[in-house]
Amino acid sequence: MALHVVVMAGGKGERLWPVSRADRPKQLISFGSDKSLIRATVDRLLPLAGPERVCIVTGADIAPQVAAELPDIPASNILAEPFGRNTAPCIAYAAAFIAARDPQGMMAVFPSDHAIADTDVFQKTVAYGAQCLHDFPEHLITIGIEPTHPETGYGYIAPSEVMHSGGTMVLRRVAAFHEKPDRERAQNYIAEGFLWNAGMFMWRVDTILRDIKRHVPDLSDNLMRLSASAWQNSDILSFYENARAVSIDYAVMEKAAKVAVIPADFGWNDVGSWDAVGKLKPKDRDGNTVEGTAYFHECRDNVVWAGVKPIVCIGIDNLVVAEGEEAILVCPRERSQDVSSVLKKIRG
Amino acid sequence: MALHVVVMAGGKGERLWPVSRADRPKQLISFGSDKSLIRATVDRLLPLAGPERVCIVTGADIAPQVAAELPDIPASNILAEPFGRNTAPCIAYAAAFIAARDPQGMMAVFPSDHAIADTDVFQKTVAYGAQCLHDFPEHLITIGIEPTHPETGYGYIAPSEVMHSGGTMVLRRVAAFHEKPDRERAQNYIAEGFLWNAGMFMWRVDTILRDIKRHVPDLSDNLMRLSASAWQNSDILSFYENARAVSIDYAVMEKAAKVAVIPADFGWNDVGSWDAVGKLKPKDRDGNTVEGTAYFHECRDNVVWAGVKPIVCIGIDNLVVAEGEEAILVCPRERSQDVSSVLKKIRG
Repeated sequence: MALHVVVMAGGKGERLWPVSRADRPKQLISFGSDKSLIRATVDRLLPLAGPERVCIVTGADIAPQVAAELPDIPASNILAEPFGRNTAPCIAYAAAFIAARDPQGMMAVFPSDHAIADTDVFQKTVAYGAQCLHDFPEHLITIGIEPTHPETGYGYIAPSEVMHSGGTMVLRRVAAFHEKPDRERAQNYIAEGFLWNAGMFMWRVDTILRDIKRHVPDLSDNLMRLSASAWQNSDILSFYENARAVSIDYAVMEKAAKVAVIPADFGWNDVGSWDAVGKLKPKDRDGNTVEGTAYFHECRDNVVWAGVKPIVCIGIDNLVVAEGEEAILVCPRERSQDVSSVLKKIRG
Repeated sequence: MALHVVVMAGGKGERLWPVSRADRPKQLISFGSDKSLIRATVDRLLPLAGPERVCIVTGADIAPQVAAELPDIPASNILAEPFGRNTAPCIAYAAAFIAARDPQGMMAVFPSDHAIADTDVFQKTVAYGAQCLHDFPEHLITIGIEPTHPETGYGYIAPSEVMHSGGTMVLRRVAAFHEKPDRERAQNYIAEGFLWNAGMFMWRVDTILRDIKRHVPDLSDNLMRLSASAWQNSDILSFYENARAVSIDYAVMEKAAKVAVIPADFGWNDVGSWDAVGKLKPKDRDGNTVEGTAYFHECRDNVVWAGVKPIVCIGIDNLVVAEGEEAILVCPRERSQDVSSVLKKIRG
C-alpha cells in the first residue's frame, strides 16, 4: 500500500500582498529560506513518496510557473484547477486521480505554502501516519499542531483517547473540530490541550472517496463523471463549475465518524501574514527582520521586505513595510491579517 | 533707490530625502502647489523687483536646473557657488554683485525653499521694509515671523521698542537674537512676544558690505579681490575656498549695532521636514495628506508621498511614508527632523 502525496497550491497570494500576488502567489516565493515554499514542501515529501507519487493541485493560471518550479515532478501529476473552489473539490479531484492509479493507495495532503522548521520530525510524523493507516484503514487522520499561543486565526482540534502509540508519537481519536475562536475561547482551548488544525490530512483514497460520497453526494456524483471521462479539460471545467466551494473540514472531517489526529510539533508556521513572516526569519538584535536592503535607526521588531529600493526606517516599532511590484504596504504587524480584506476593498 | 532681490538656493535637500536629493533638492520640487518652491518664491518677488533685479545664488551643480526652472531671470543673475559655505559668504557675494551695478541699492534676501500662504501680506511686508530703509539706511532689517507654537527648530528674535509704524506694520528695534531653544525656553520666548527668525533680510548693499567689513574682515578682504576681478570663475572659487562657513546671523546680525525687525504673519512654512510638508497640503477627513496615489484604511494624520507605486496604509497614525527615486522612508512625523542626520550616518 503505497503513499501518495498531494500538495495543494491554489493560494491566491492575498495575505502577503504586495510581494505575493495572484500571478505569483506566496507558494512560489521564498520566505526565510533560499527555496520557494512549494519547492521546500515538495522536498520535504520526496523522501516519503518518489516524484511519480507526488501530485500538485494548483490554479490553471499559475500551473506553468508551478511546473517550472518543480521540474522533477511529472507534468501529468500537476493538476490544474480552472478556478478555486476551496479544499473539498480539490481533494476530491486528487483522490479520484490517485484512485485511478492505485485504488487502495494512501494519500497525504499538505498545503504548499507553509514553513516547517524540523523536517526530520515532520517526516517521522507522516511515516507514523502511514503506519497508523495500516491499522485503521477506515480512519481519516489529521496532523494537529501543538499550539504555542492562543491564536484566533486557526481552527482547533479537540483530541480524546489514545488509539495507538508508536515511539514518541500517538494517534488520538478526534472529539470535535472547532472553528476559529475568539481570544478567550482560544485560551480555554489551549488549557484543554486542543491542537491547531493545519490542513494536513492522511487517509486511504478509497476511504476519503467513500466519505465524500456519504457526506457530499453532489460532489461525488460529479466526480464519478469526471473519473469516467479520463480527465478531459472540458470535464474538469464542468466538475469545478458544478462543485460548491466548501472546505474538506466542513464538508467531511466534521461529519465523518472515524477521525483521528496525530499531535505534532515540528516548527510549523503557516506564513499566513506578514507578522508570521517576521517569526520565520532571523532577527537583528532589535528584533527587526529584513528581506533585501533596509536601514534601521532606533527601530524595534519590524518586518521589512525591500524590493528594488532600500527602505530607511527611523524610530518605528512593530510595523510591516513591504514593497512589491505594484505597491508599497505599511501597517502594524498586529493588523497584518487585515491585508487581504483591505485589498479586496481597494479593488472594489 | 531700487530694490534688488536675492534668492538663496543652496539647499542640499537632505531634510526631505528621499524625494528631495542633492541633485534635485527641495527648492526644485513642488510641495502643496503646482509650482516648485523656487519658482513660487521668485513669482512672489517679481512684482517688487523686475527680473533684471532678481538674482539667485545656488550650487554650481544644480545651477543649470535652476536656470531652466527660471527662464525669465537673466542667466547672468544666477550666481553659482562652487560649494556651500553657509549664508555669510553667499550674501557677501550677492551684495558685492549688486553693489557693482547699484552701489546704493536696496537688497532683500530670501530662502528659495519656503512656502508662504498669503502673497499679498508678504509683498506688503517687503514693500514696507523698503520704505523703512529710506528712513533707516544704516539698519539691517529682518522679517520676523509671529510664532504659532513653541518650536525648538528655529532661532528667535527678541524685539524691543517701535521705531516706525505704517498702517498695520511696525518696525521694531531688535534687542537680541536667540539660538534654537529647548522646549521650556521656547515657551518663554513665545510668552515674551519673540519672533521666529526665518532668514529673511533687507538692507542697503553699502550698509551690509560695511557691516561685513566690520564684523567679518577676512571675508570682506576676499570679497574686495573678487569684486576687483569682475567675477571670474577662478576668483569665485578662490573666494569660497577662503571663506569660513558661517551664517549671516552669527557673523553679522548678532553683532551689528543697528538691527530692526518687522513682525509679520503671512502663513510662513519653512518646508523644513516631512512634518512641515504635512502642514502645507490639504488633509483628508482623517488628517492624512497625500502626494501621488495612496489608500488609507483606518489611518490618521499621516504624510504620504507616493512615487511611482501606490502606497497602501492600514491602521497607521502620524507616520511619514515617502518613496523617492533611490529609497523608501518610513518614520514618525515627530522624528522627521532626524532624516538628514540619519542620512549622513547611512552614507558614512
